[in-house]
Amino acid sequence: MTNVLDKGFVELLDVFGDDLTVVNAARVSFAKESEEMNSKDEKLIQYLASHNHITPFFHPQLRFRLKMPIYVAREWFRHGIGFARNEVSRRYVDTQPECYNPTDIRERDQNLKQGSKLTNIEQNDEVSQTIQHIQDDLIVFYNRLLELKVAPELARGVLPQSMYTEFIETGSLSAYARLCKLRLDPHAQFEIRQYAQAVSDLIQTKFPVCWESLTK
Amino acid sequence: MTNVLDKGFVELLDVFGDDLTVVNAARVSFAKESEEMNSKDEKLIQYLASHNHITPFFHPQLRFRLKMPIYVAREWFRHGIGFARNEVSRRYVDTQPECYNPTDIRERDQNLKQGSKLTNIEQNDEVSQTIQHIQDDLIVFYNRLLELKVAPELARGVLPQSMYTEFIETGSLSAYARLCKLRLDPHAQFEIRQYAQAVSDLIQTKFPVCWESLTK
Amino acid sequence: MTNVLDKGFVELLDVFGDDLTVVNAARVSFAKESEEMNSKDEKLIQYLASHNHITPFFHPQLRFRLKMPIYVAREWFRHGIGFARNEVSRRYVDTQPECYNPTDIRERDQNLKQGSKLTNIEQNDEVSQTIQHIQDDLIVFYNRLLELKVAPELARGVLPQSMYTEFIETGSLSAYARLCKLRLDPHAQFEIRQYAQAVSDLIQTKFPVCWESLTK
Amino acid sequence: MTNVLDKGFVELLDVFGDDLTVVNAARVSFAKESEEMNSKDEKLIQYLASHNHITPFFHPQLRFRLKMPIYVAREWFRHGIGFARNEVSRRYVDTQPECYNPTDIRERDQNLKQGSKLTNIEQNDEVSQTIQHIQDDLIVFYNRLLELKVAPELARGVLPQSMYTEFIETGSLSAYARLCKLRLDPHAQFEIRQYAQAVSDLIQTKFPVCWESLTK
Repeated sequence: MTNVLDKGFVELLDVFGDDLTVVNAARVSFAKESEEMNSKDEKLIQYLASHNHITPFFHPQLRFRLKMPIYVAREWFRHGIGFARNEVSRRYVDTQPECYNPTDIRERDQNLKQGSKLTNIEQNDEVSQTIQHIQDDLIVFYNRLLELKVAPELARGVLPQSMYTEFIETGSLSAYARLCKLRLDPHAQFEIRQYAQAVSDLIQTKFPVCWESLTK
Repeated sequence: MTNVLDKGFVELLDVFGDDLTVVNAARVSFAKESEEMNSKDEKLIQYLASHNHITPFFHPQLRFRLKMPIYVAREWFRHGIGFARNEVSRRYVDTQPECYNPTDIRERDQNLKQGSKLTNIEQNDEVSQTIQHIQDDLIVFYNRLLELKVAPELARGVLPQSMYTEFIETGSLSAYARLCKLRLDPHAQFEIRQYAQAVSDLIQTKFPVCWESLTK
Repeated sequence: MTNVLDKGFVELLDVFGDDLTVVNAARVSFAKESEEMNSKDEKLIQYLASHNHITPFFHPQLRFRLKMPIYVAREWFRHGIGFARNEVSRRYVDTQPECYNPTDIRERDQNLKQGSKLTNIEQNDEVSQTIQHIQDDLIVFYNRLLELKVAPELARGVLPQSMYTEFIETGSLSAYARLCKLRLDPHAQFEIRQYAQAVSDLIQTKFPVCWESLTK
Repeated sequence: MTNVLDKGFVELLDVFGDDLTVVNAARVSFAKESEEMNSKDEKLIQYLASHNHITPFFHPQLRFRLKMPIYVAREWFRHGIGFARNEVSRRYVDTQPECYNPTDIRERDQNLKQGSKLTNIEQNDEVSQTIQHIQDDLIVFYNRLLELKVAPELARGVLPQSMYTEFIETGSLSAYARLCKLRLDPHAQFEIRQYAQAVSDLIQTKFPVCWESLTK
């Protein structure tokens, strides 16, 4: 389990296949098969990746459990093709919500339309603490609504978008390569890049040749 | 444009095909074609729908613009297969947020795990007004963060999940049928049912025979 | 490996997950988890399947190697959502083709538009043998074209649609359930039903509770 | 309708959206909209295409009717994501089959593993005519089987893979861009390149800015 941000994580639950799965899916075209990775197999993987022949990379799958702020999850979920997801629902769950509380407050970047960079604004700590207080207050108010018997499906409306959510996700190697490529880009938001990096590092250990070829 | 909830809407932007599109997609199997709907065509559509032969229903498409609270959108987006979506992003937009403010506060339903029903709790108006005040305060605080030059991508974290979002969505007739069937179910949350009903009513006018067969 | 028809087969290569994978994907909504299947878990699976809540069934995956006649494969491949496939290509392979040779010749069914039933036509054996001879002759001619240096990608045009092809396929439990339900229907062609049955029997052993719920 | 090969064609049936559809799907992120294409819009499209931001290109759709040899269709159908297809079925149709008869016989290319080039082999005409005769004989034999009341679903097994098939296809602009990019590659088979070119030329007229950006 890799910790991400102040209370989030990425946990690799299970892996389906390895580099050889891709090789043998590709070699079926030639009616051949490999028992063990060799240098020819590595070249084949590089060829497939660089020529956009992605179907063999659809066969391996990975399953993760992730915990991330809602506004990060909403960008993560834009990647739908090749993924299955099941998420905790605050219609059924009314345990204590947790929120992401950034300690380094970034200012609006004037040069880049997207992204942002660290700021030196004096108010950094004050802003961070005020955000924390507001988030705490909202959770108190949410609990008060539940005490008044308000339906959780309605009460959740007052919770902030920085609230953590948790989900199980199964995706193909190809789908994760595309997600990580886009979300590791320096224009992507700092927070989502941390999750993409954690996922990428975990996949790297399981599919070293494929991942190198797909993401370089 | 159909108004939904207090500030949301469903707008049908464009339609691709009609009932006959489905008939002719199906008839290609038999190398036949119809110029105009007749009673045989209606029976064919009913047969296809009732026997789960859904491929002909993938050809027609509809494009909508929708505005709904984030926690409703998050359930709506669980339907990914057959849909394309582009959504407003509060990384780039810092116009005034708007929030959903329910006037009828529903209480937790003891009998149904899902869903909820109207409550008579005396506090109804008080709760509704307090929610309104809290949402207003959060928008004030959000604007204060922007004045302090905090990046919008971070500042949005304090906005509530009842905030409205807007998106353009293209989906196949088949994809909308599946979405509406699940989201018009009495167990679905009241708010999402209003959107499913508005979408359903608009599709009904454009694909009367197909929609009747797919959703009955 | 299960033999199917005269020279085909279905081989289960690998399995990702089990009944519990579905349970835990579904339970994430309630922030709960099971270590071992119990009777509550079985009821949950039945509930999910019967209420068309299919997302938890997208997480488990199976990988097969299949060998089937081209005209069967062409129907099998109509099921695209949730599947990854890599197939032998006769652009690159020029090993000896093999063809499906039915010994029981079915006659056109007058009552059913689709499907067909065993016939007693006297010519059964004669027809079967003539088909065999024609298929043999086509392979001889195909080899003659290759000797004349004709490109395999062009020469393959003369090979019959009864020729066997081979492919590796990864699919989700949900995708296989849909395929098997449609292809085990008595209206489906006899040949494809044999493959759907073989796949179904293999899945049954790995996901006994889910498969029972999804296909009954 | 564009004629392709000796008896095939590509016919554009209908179009859903134009270049502006992509612009406005992308601009929803910024809560803006264009009424008419201008130079800023063109630059936006180029930016989206070159940075792999493909979701706005999923909204426009095109519908084609295509007629192509089965072995070409089998490669075409490998592109499944973003496409809906309905194809003529020889289980239900027993009209006269037609086959592709190449007049220029290409020889196996020794340098390229894939693809092939025109040959000067003297036997060109002889081979072409022999293929024609064999295909004619197979159709005669197929008709003979039908006269003997053999089920069309079985009789089709003897028809050659060069037989033409016909289908209706709806796909997103993004899906067609990916297909055409891969199938216009010089390594792709000559026959499929003719279809990709015909489709590409038709799309070019309807989405001039997008198509230029997506396929260059």
